[in-house]
Amino acid sequence: MVAATVPEARTTTTSVIGVDLGGTKLLAGAVGPDLAVHHRVRRQAFGLDQPTLLATIVEAVQEAAQAAEAAGTEVAGVGLGIPVTMDRRTGVAVYSTHLPIAGMPFEAVMSEQLGLPVAVDNDGNCAVLAEVRHGAAQGADDVVMLTLGTGIGGGLVLGGKVQRGWIGAGAEFGHMVIDMDGPPCQGNCPNRGCLEVMASGSALVREAALRVGRRPDTPLGHALEEGRALTGPFVTELAHDGDPVALDAMGAVARALGVGLSSIVNMLNPEVIVIGGGVIAAGEMLLGPARQEMLSRALTPARDTVRVVPAAFGDEAGMIGAALLAREEL
Amino acid sequence: MVAATVPEARTTTTSVIGVDLGGTKLLAGAVGPDLAVHHRVRRQAFGLDQPTLLATIVEAVQEAAQAAEAAGTEVAGVGLGIPVTMDRRTGVAVYSTHLPIAGMPFEAVMSEQLGLPVAVDNDGNCAVLAEVRHGAAQGADDVVMLTLGTGIGGGLVLGGKVQRGWIGAGAEFGHMVIDMDGPPCQGNCPNRGCLEVMASGSALVREAALRVGRRPDTPLGHALEEGRALTGPFVTELAHDGDPVALDAMGAVARALGVGLSSIVNMLNPEVIVIGGGVIAAGEMLLGPARQEMLSRALTPARDTVRVVPAAFGDEAGMIGAALLAREEL
Repeated sequence: MVAATVPEARTTTTSVIGVDLGGTKLLAGAVGPDLAVHHRVRRQAFGLDQPTLLATIVEAVQEAAQAAEAAGTEVAGVGLGIPVTMDRRTGVAVYSTHLPIAGMPFEAVMSEQLGLPVAVDNDGNCAVLAEVRHGAAQGADDVVMLTLGTGIGGGLVLGGKVQRGWIGAGAEFGHMVIDMDGPPCQGNCPNRGCLEVMASGSALVREAALRVGRRPDTPLGHALEEGRALTGPFVTELAHDGDPVALDAMGAVARALGVGLSSIVNMLNPEVIVIGGGVIAAGEMLLGPARQEMLSRALTPARDTVRVVPAAFGDEAGMIGAALLAREEL
Repeated sequence: MVAATVPEARTTTTSVIGVDLGGTKLLAGAVGPDLAVHHRVRRQAFGLDQPTLLATIVEAVQEAAQAAEAAGTEVAGVGLGIPVTMDRRTGVAVYSTHLPIAGMPFEAVMSEQLGLPVAVDNDGNCAVLAEVRHGAAQGADDVVMLTLGTGIGGGLVLGGKVQRGWIGAGAEFGHMVIDMDGPPCQGNCPNRGCLEVMASGSALVREAALRVGRRPDTPLGHALEEGRALTGPFVTELAHDGDPVALDAMGAVARALGVGLSSIVNMLNPEVIVIGGGVIAAGEMLLGPARQEMLSRALTPARDTVRVVPAAFGDEAGMIGAALLAREEL
């Protein structure tokens, strides 16, 4: 620790704003070079029309940027993770199950409205980037990430690289079929029995709703009678408390997740599968039985060597990954 | 075409022996630098015990090698495509649905018995290599290959590279679940409702057998009564002739294949999906309805841009790819 003999130039640290836009909510954060999140902004995104959604994004980014600038850092750009299939050749959000932004040149529009450089990718690709660079899959070259929320997002790293497929629309692991004649998938997906409709937060709610009518004399049944809303977090909370209906619903979701994991293990032989998104609040109550189902179905040796672990960045993986994307691409 | 002023040195061309070992048969060939196949050897591989199977491979390779040497080419090595999950870190064939070679250090044993350099990979990885380098997916960087035979093999190229996963056991697209409570899978696979049990040659036979009992007064029913064996090629032949039971069975297999294709398109966004293996003898009768099923289920834009095409090398893709593997690795 020798004292400097000349005055140091004042260092301006740069921040980037990471935005994770989910099917129901938006999380933005000012992220420093050390990945520390200096200011978080949360907004509801559910059910907004396109102009309101875009205004919500702009306002959230500006709030985070102003906080970063007030703290003396320069904002170098914005990374956006959005739940869409992208055509990365054109920057157009071709398709979205949950948000009214299909057909939009999303990257160009955001860049113009924000007056900052913008990088856009699928939310699952952002999340896997965060977990591979600095999280639960650090150092691994072959990684699959699933984000279990309203829907199911996915991210894929093979051979050490984020693999988006030919035009950038890949890694939609939520739309892998596990039950070809199963329930119709959510939103605009034309498929049936996708992992998303069998193992997402929405699936947890549906499985609980299907069961609680037959077992009204349970904590969940009583809560609903008293007017409590049936949500994924509430079912998870009751399952932690031992409610039989909530536990059954969690078991059905865990089994479906395990079936999906067996397909992923067989097809891609990942070293690590990282599970993130809001539903991972269930922790080992979900992951334990899902791992068992995978082990009973997948092929050796891939099933015996894979690690199935919760996201290190929890439900901030998408936001932090979006910030990393901006740092790496801009 | 100026005459050479000095006598040309006699060029010794080199051949490699490519071997495709399937669940029921073995195809070996001496393959020149121009990919021309100079000598083919076919053997039955079904139901052999391990020593007999190994002896069969050695004998087939030696026959092809002798033919190549008799034609004045030097044999530089042997490439073997085998239907196993490999641990490429050790060269051990860890698991095989159809052949008695699990647990063997296959590469070392073959190299010793043949006295030649040997390269071993999964048969599906070999097939995709042939199709990407010189076949139906030439020039594409993101390609999935399915080989429909007794089982279903798979090969995966993403970002221009063969992707085998962490320890080399990936690309088992035949063991992607499409019906989680469906029929038990084949051989030693512990799963249910895998693509392999729903859309392979074996599935075609099973679907025909399930239907013909209810409709004995059909060409297929009559043929079986006369003692004809129920095989995939025979069902395909009758379907081409318009037999209603064979057509129904083909339709069920095509639908299952289309479901699997929709998952592949959503997860990996390939530019090309190449379908090879013996079952592709059904041609557009299989591929047409499979494409329609995929289009009705997969997400845009990936579904609208993918090409689903038959293998250019037909049922020789695995053998030629094994030869390419030997050329590239040895």
